[in-house]
Amino acid sequence: MPDQPKVIVCDQLLMDYFGTLLDEFTPPAFWNSSDPMARLHEIGSEVRVLITYGGNPRLPALVSALPKLGAVLVSGAGYEGIDFDMLRARGIVCANNGPGNSEDVADLALGMALAARREIIAGDRFVRDGSWTVTGGITKSFCSMRAGIVGYGYIGKAIGRRLDGFGMDSAWWAPRPQPAESRCRAETLLDLAKSSDLLFIACPGGEATRRLIDRHIIEAVGPDGLIVTVARGSVIDEDELIKALRDGRLGGAGLDVFEQEPTPAARWTGVPNVVLSPHRGGVTDAARLRTIELTRQNIRRFLAGEDLFDRLI
Amino acid sequence: MPDQPKVIVCDQLLMDYFGTLLDEFTPPAFWNSSDPMARLHEIGSEVRVLITYGGNPRLPALVSALPKLGAVLVSGAGYEGIDFDMLRARGIVCANNGPGNSEDVADLALGMALAARREIIAGDRFVRDGSWTVTGGITKSFCSMRAGIVGYGYIGKAIGRRLDGFGMDSAWWAPRPQPAESRCRAETLLDLAKSSDLLFIACPGGEATRRLIDRHIIEAVGPDGLIVTVARGSVIDEDELIKALRDGRLGGAGLDVFEQEPTPAARWTGVPNVVLSPHRGGVTDAARLRTIELTRQNIRRFLAGEDLFDRLI
Repeated sequence: MPDQPKVIVCDQLLMDYFGTLLDEFTPPAFWNSSDPMARLHEIGSEVRVLITYGGNPRLPALVSALPKLGAVLVSGAGYEGIDFDMLRARGIVCANNGPGNSEDVADLALGMALAARREIIAGDRFVRDGSWTVTGGITKSFCSMRAGIVGYGYIGKAIGRRLDGFGMDSAWWAPRPQPAESRCRAETLLDLAKSSDLLFIACPGGEATRRLIDRHIIEAVGPDGLIVTVARGSVIDEDELIKALRDGRLGGAGLDVFEQEPTPAARWTGVPNVVLSPHRGGVTDAARLRTIELTRQNIRRFLAGEDLFDRLI
Repeated sequence: MPDQPKVIVCDQLLMDYFGTLLDEFTPPAFWNSSDPMARLHEIGSEVRVLITYGGNPRLPALVSALPKLGAVLVSGAGYEGIDFDMLRARGIVCANNGPGNSEDVADLALGMALAARREIIAGDRFVRDGSWTVTGGITKSFCSMRAGIVGYGYIGKAIGRRLDGFGMDSAWWAPRPQPAESRCRAETLLDLAKSSDLLFIACPGGEATRRLIDRHIIEAVGPDGLIVTVARGSVIDEDELIKALRDGRLGGAGLDVFEQEPTPAARWTGVPNVVLSPHRGGVTDAARLRTIELTRQNIRRFLAGEDLFDRLI
């Protein structure tokens, strides 16, 4: 570890996630020191790359403390908390982690959808409590559903490939068309919701998508439909989702992300047909290694004067 | 309903499953009469087709009571309880329901595999009990696994197509090669187990496959591996599976079928990393309609003198 590092990781939790593989960049236990921000002013004069979460509230303070900062690398896919104008004003470029964890996030999306539709959690309970099956034991078919994908980046496309394997019809919607894409793009989000009984939410968070999934979209998916989200909690009107599940206006849901995280447990008591997951779609052993590798590549590229992969600005 | 039906369904439970769509063949409430077997001798003289489960212990008695019986149609995929020699001796043909529920069984197989690997049931509990994530919250990646499929009929192939969508490498093994198949067939079952960390069991039950998945196969899948079965309980040495899960010699399991059904709940207390399902892989609304439609087609074909679809003998 050089005395004046060129790269720094934004806090101890993210340091732990990256583990020893990025220790060479940030002094070990730096963030556990008594006043790390004061220490940052001492050791930060040569820092050119900052690695951070998309939703890090301390980002402006960190950027201010690093006079030579040229690149902000977001460790995950989400970048909803990044103030691009602030970075642009300093001439700082920014990239997210692109496909670092998108395959694993898509896996969990399918897993929650299957668990909800085929009642896998209740089935496990029925075996364990000795009740075996409820009346008839029949569940609704999964692969007979028609799916829609909201947001069509790395994660949305990874979900789409999986749906193809299940033989499901699917379409997608995002604000911008993708001309080279063979999967059908719906004219509007509402059109997509109306023609889908399984709606996956995989778009970015932030102001542009706040409460994009409102009561109208939820009701268009309908009483036999299922909404699964691996996006950000801000994208769904969660109060309306809960009401619709309680009233039977929406058939079921799977959520890996919440308006507030951790979500208050009491909020979900008695809400039927919902599979809950503690925001760990992208948190796997393989995703961690891929994220570290892509971060290393972008560090190397930036320090060598090359363009970043998955640059946002 | 004619006084002397040409087609009969083997019991009330299966009648209920087929519902009114097959009522025209068997007198309504027939099986609820005080002595249905005696009644069968009165009304069974013209019966040419019997619809039954694969594991129906009363099949010999039913066949004896039906002098003109020419075809036995198995309502599901499994035919492990059918005495083919007995049928052959009477010149009776037999078919199972081929692809009636194979897509739905494959869906549940993937659902159990994802639930086990990504700890979806525990994740749901963590949100509901307020503990959110355990240490790190990290799970093992699903799509990074290498999969093997034991048995390569309708269900095995449907599992394979789904794995392709996840971008997973996979191979299969069954006693007979399938020359036109592009997916790789392992030389032996043990080779397949050694090269797989996710092993799907989707072969027929019966004597030929009894305890095919023994301690050696289980240990070859290993401490980081996962076994998911949608076959029959007889195919796995369940005691050895439980021991291996307890000892950590096998990483995890998903079971929709058991040696004894319902399986005693106490048998699974404290067995780690196992997802249990009350044998309902093929029990969905869509599978029911497809099963009824395929059964209707085979009834029509047999009565018209045509060959049956998915004929077993």
